[in-house]
Amino acid sequence: MRYSQLFTKTSKSAPHDAESINARLLEQAGFVRQEMAGVYSWLPLGLRVLRKVENIIREEMNALGAQEILMPALQPKENWLQTGRWDSVDVLFKVPSQTKKEYALGPSAEEIVTPLVQQFVKSYKDLPTSVYQIHWKYRDELRAKSGVMRGREFEMKDLYSFHTAQEDLDAFYVKVTETYLRVYTRCGVDAKVVQASGGVFSEKFSHEFHVETPAGEDRLLMCSSCTFAQNIEVATVKEGDPCSQCGGKIRLTKGVEVGNIYDCGKKYSDAFNFDVSFEDGTQGRVLTGCYGIGVTRLVGAIVEASHDDRGMIWPKSVAPFHVHLISLGSKDAEVAKCVQSAAQELYESLSANGVEVLWDEREGVSAGEKFADADLIGVPLRLVVSEKTLKEDSVELKMRTGQEMRLVKIQDVEREINNF
Amino acid sequence: MRYSQLFTKTSKSAPHDAESINARLLEQAGFVRQEMAGVYSWLPLGLRVLRKVENIIREEMNALGAQEILMPALQPKENWLQTGRWDSVDVLFKVPSQTKKEYALGPSAEEIVTPLVQQFVKSYKDLPTSVYQIHWKYRDELRAKSGVMRGREFEMKDLYSFHTAQEDLDAFYVKVTETYLRVYTRCGVDAKVVQASGGVFSEKFSHEFHVETPAGEDRLLMCSSCTFAQNIEVATVKEGDPCSQCGGKIRLTKGVEVGNIYDCGKKYSDAFNFDVSFEDGTQGRVLTGCYGIGVTRLVGAIVEASHDDRGMIWPKSVAPFHVHLISLGSKDAEVAKCVQSAAQELYESLSANGVEVLWDEREGVSAGEKFADADLIGVPLRLVVSEKTLKEDSVELKMRTGQEMRLVKIQDVEREINNF
Repeated sequence: MRYSQLFTKTSKSAPHDAESINARLLEQAGFVRQEMAGVYSWLPLGLRVLRKVENIIREEMNALGAQEILMPALQPKENWLQTGRWDSVDVLFKVPSQTKKEYALGPSAEEIVTPLVQQFVKSYKDLPTSVYQIHWKYRDELRAKSGVMRGREFEMKDLYSFHTAQEDLDAFYVKVTETYLRVYTRCGVDAKVVQASGGVFSEKFSHEFHVETPAGEDRLLMCSSCTFAQNIEVATVKEGDPCSQCGGKIRLTKGVEVGNIYDCGKKYSDAFNFDVSFEDGTQGRVLTGCYGIGVTRLVGAIVEASHDDRGMIWPKSVAPFHVHLISLGSKDAEVAKCVQSAAQELYESLSANGVEVLWDEREGVSAGEKFADADLIGVPLRLVVSEKTLKEDSVELKMRTGQEMRLVKIQDVEREINNF
Repeated sequence: MRYSQLFTKTSKSAPHDAESINARLLEQAGFVRQEMAGVYSWLPLGLRVLRKVENIIREEMNALGAQEILMPALQPKENWLQTGRWDSVDVLFKVPSQTKKEYALGPSAEEIVTPLVQQFVKSYKDLPTSVYQIHWKYRDELRAKSGVMRGREFEMKDLYSFHTAQEDLDAFYVKVTETYLRVYTRCGVDAKVVQASGGVFSEKFSHEFHVETPAGEDRLLMCSSCTFAQNIEVATVKEGDPCSQCGGKIRLTKGVEVGNIYDCGKKYSDAFNFDVSFEDGTQGRVLTGCYGIGVTRLVGAIVEASHDDRGMIWPKSVAPFHVHLISLGSKDAEVAKCVQSAAQELYESLSANGVEVLWDEREGVSAGEKFADADLIGVPLRLVVSEKTLKEDSVELKMRTGQEMRLVKIQDVEREINNF
């Protein structure tokens, strides 16, 4: 994409009300726009990142054998009364209608998915099964802060599984745990499994997935040596204790929750009397698991975990572009034209070969300004074409993560990019 | 996909409350599930169709040069007060919050997109520009009927354009009209441009795009010979009149509106004081156009326009699968095994070559039941592997639109499919 085609612009100054690093950088770079507290528009650069994160999650859910569906955000009140959550979920938006009915605006979809799957699943032969969606959710948060990490409207991947036997649910739960860790690794962040309470979503235990960052809203107790980790809300240890698993030292830290998984047992199948015929001919109640990944929140967590004082640093897998190509001007109009034309050739040849290139082809914008924009936007690889580089038939290559700049012959650029 | 992996099942009987053909067929075939009046879940088969329609629209919007973004459904009341639509739009859901604020649940996004674009667009040099989103919308309809064609929650593609000069807006408006007609053609339906009133979205005129069907909620006056067409709400002619353009006969018919485009003039830029610096140095007000396609509604319209008494008939471009492969059982277990194994080989070879195949590999299900399911689901091409066809090293090929069945040698199947 040509930079000048973007309708967004970067901003030199931080938004006055940015309460977190992710909000400040995402807004300054024009990835998102805050429409009100906890509610964002996703602009072209931000949407590209969001779609890449969605697709990584989608691939991993499909690999689990889960089937993608889409359930409504506007949900019948009756379903929420049936689980008791119409009154117990304090962040539930309740929407009045001119039909005199009231609707729930879904913070999750257990109330929809349970009767939905129940309609089709009648026998143990239909189980286990699992379905998921990637869709927008709503929570009437009293305080929405932390940028895109705690929204009133946010995108979530929610997966639901249905089983006849506890061992089967347990095995799926473990598979989901592994899948989630793979999702985070693929998105370029290091997430840890943390023991947590069930909350209003479960009657049993749960696990959360946290990215360690000072911006995290949760306090965690983690072993310094092994994978033991507990949310302070359910912690059985305290800072400085020896780890019960390995004897290592327990430390207190902060994390942002980017996923959670619940063994819901019969909580939802009881609410909807969801029985199936078992192999022995009896009718038995179904067991369910619920598994969430905060998609928009994960984008925020990636920024919190990967930035410096000049801007964001996107992992390649979720970067809005692979390459940020900059062509610099010159006082000599003839030279400037040569530079633009060499850059255009490179842009077109890379694009034709599937490399996603953002080409800053703006004229009358200083080198300093272009470099600052590139650092803020945080595309992993920067290429500069200028009078100086062209004298060497080269472009200047720099990784966003490093300081080193080096000249690469134009004919070698593509190979260099493919190697990285 | 293997049929038995689908968690949905077809139903022999129509849902008792299906008020339209699209609702009946989509629900019976397990494409969607009605959660309440006007609110549907999209199940695996339905979601595949929806994604294909979305992608056709996305490609055409990108070809227009429009940039994709995502704006929130939950919108600040202040923005709606500023345009006066907080009080004038009777289908606006107003969502109370425990923060004591009220939010709008967007039926469209003029109130968000105008200040959003205004933030970045300061000069005539930044114009024209256009942005779009494909996202869910909400309307508090008093009566939601017509299946997925009039929803309280529905998916819409909304495009917004911004200009400094009327000629420029006019030219873009014409380009959008052509693009819309191409979208409908690519989706396999014939839509007509119809003159309509501005309604609450515009202060000027508008055009609608209608698919002619007895299920349509709008009454239209159309010329039998040329493209002249008016919504009865603004009609200057009546049934039987001669057409003012060609002298042909005006007929009365029904249509379902699958798109609309508005020249909004300064309606929204006035509300938000959206000015830019013009080329002559003065400040001038921006002109806007708003253009919508009802995505979920378009899926319903395709079903209304393309079905028979046995089920749906999907155009190839939006069909959930290209091929519905059926393997039939046999009383002879050895033969049945041969048939399954030949079908599996065909399934795997077609899938590996990018053909989207739904393979009904269920055992213990009669041929009649499998054929009925195939007709209901409406995949354009049916292939049957059976004892009889294998004796000829063949499969039986039938188009969903026709009656003719013919044997095709197994090694020729792929070529036949590519030709179709």
